[in-house]
Amino acid sequence: MEPGTPLSPTERSSPRREKERARSGRESLDDVLAASVICHLAVVVDGVPLALPTVFGVDPDGPDEGGTVYLHGSVASRSLVQAPDQDVSVTWTVLDGMVLARSGFNHSMNYRSAVVIGRPRVVAEPGELSHALDLLVDHVVPGRAAALRRPTRKELAATTVLALPLHEASVKVREGDPDDEPEDVAAGYWAGVVPLRLRAGDVVTSADAPGTAVPAHVAARADELR
Amino acid sequence: MEPGTPLSPTERSSPRREKERARSGRESLDDVLAASVICHLAVVVDGVPLALPTVFGVDPDGPDEGGTVYLHGSVASRSLVQAPDQDVSVTWTVLDGMVLARSGFNHSMNYRSAVVIGRPRVVAEPGELSHALDLLVDHVVPGRAAALRRPTRKELAATTVLALPLHEASVKVREGDPDDEPEDVAAGYWAGVVPLRLRAGDVVTSADAPGTAVPAHVAARADELR
Repeated sequence: MEPGTPLSPTERSSPRREKERARSGRESLDDVLAASVICHLAVVVDGVPLALPTVFGVDPDGPDEGGTVYLHGSVASRSLVQAPDQDVSVTWTVLDGMVLARSGFNHSMNYRSAVVIGRPRVVAEPGELSHALDLLVDHVVPGRAAALRRPTRKELAATTVLALPLHEASVKVREGDPDDEPEDVAAGYWAGVVPLRLRAGDVVTSADAPGTAVPAHVAARADELR
Repeated sequence: MEPGTPLSPTERSSPRREKERARSGRESLDDVLAASVICHLAVVVDGVPLALPTVFGVDPDGPDEGGTVYLHGSVASRSLVQAPDQDVSVTWTVLDGMVLARSGFNHSMNYRSAVVIGRPRVVAEPGELSHALDLLVDHVVPGRAAALRRPTRKELAATTVLALPLHEASVKVREGDPDDEPEDVAAGYWAGVVPLRLRAGDVVTSADAPGTAVPAHVAARADELR
């Protein structure tokens, strides 16, 4: 999808509060997804809404409108068997900082978040499933799928992947300083932001792989998150 | 609540897969909440399940069974007005690492996650609301609430806080090396973990607070997350 392509939010996918935080370009969605390692899939299971943390992969040229997001969906798949026609949503939340204002009321977080709503489908065709699994692995560490053996037929049969169109999406961003009341600013107290970022530590080689070298694609990803 | 107190998971709050990852002690719940900056509140809004990222605060001696978790809940409150008798859930997800196995199938994440299910109540009593707001602020930066002016009546009236019992909870933890198939290990390829942690950067003083010193409680929190 081209940079500058507008998102297609609907009323239900759009922020209801703090409308100045809404972003309308497709590149803002791509940014949030690229900055996220996991997402939360919201589904109703046995009558209770759950937010299931899961890895994901993106195919901007996938078969669904707006491109396809693939999710590891074993728990969710149970609810989809129960209610195949239910809409679900996926939320990505990147925490960028703690916003420490002069009042509790104006405390906030700096973040980038995205929500996609849609009717999921279970990926059944083996070619698409194999492609989706590569995307899931490569989203975590780019280049990793090509370094692995191919999945077996048994592994593919034991894996549930959901596909969702990236069409009905909305993005919210909060950045910068606290927004304090003028009288609170005038009182002269400190306010500010503690920046936050998910960072990688030193790569740990598995105990059952002594003496093997950390592959370049793994080292590069760890460096990117250093 | 005493360390060693067992959690009270129910079938719907319990992990269905990978049961070896379940933790049964209250201290595992306390650990996940202490390590989290935000959580995701799962609610059905206009018929669609959403995972709403929000800050939270914990009162282990709160009025609800098992203690109380308080959530900033303005968006969620709309759905609760629509359906006051609906159960909701809250999910905390702490990402500890990328688990890079020899096969895509055995790729995973190291994480600590908790789910609490329950019937939320909107905090209405001004004393409890004010206390809850202090807990929300202090969870982000311990000691911060005491450094702020008290909320005004207008601010309290404009704030929606939800309370949920910490009673019906379950915790899952995945840690350590990848679990590979013996034949994949024998092939001699590298496998390992890229540890992940949410870390703080240098504290940024607000542009409208030039020359003010970063308070000790803020510096201590930033150091803790360094």
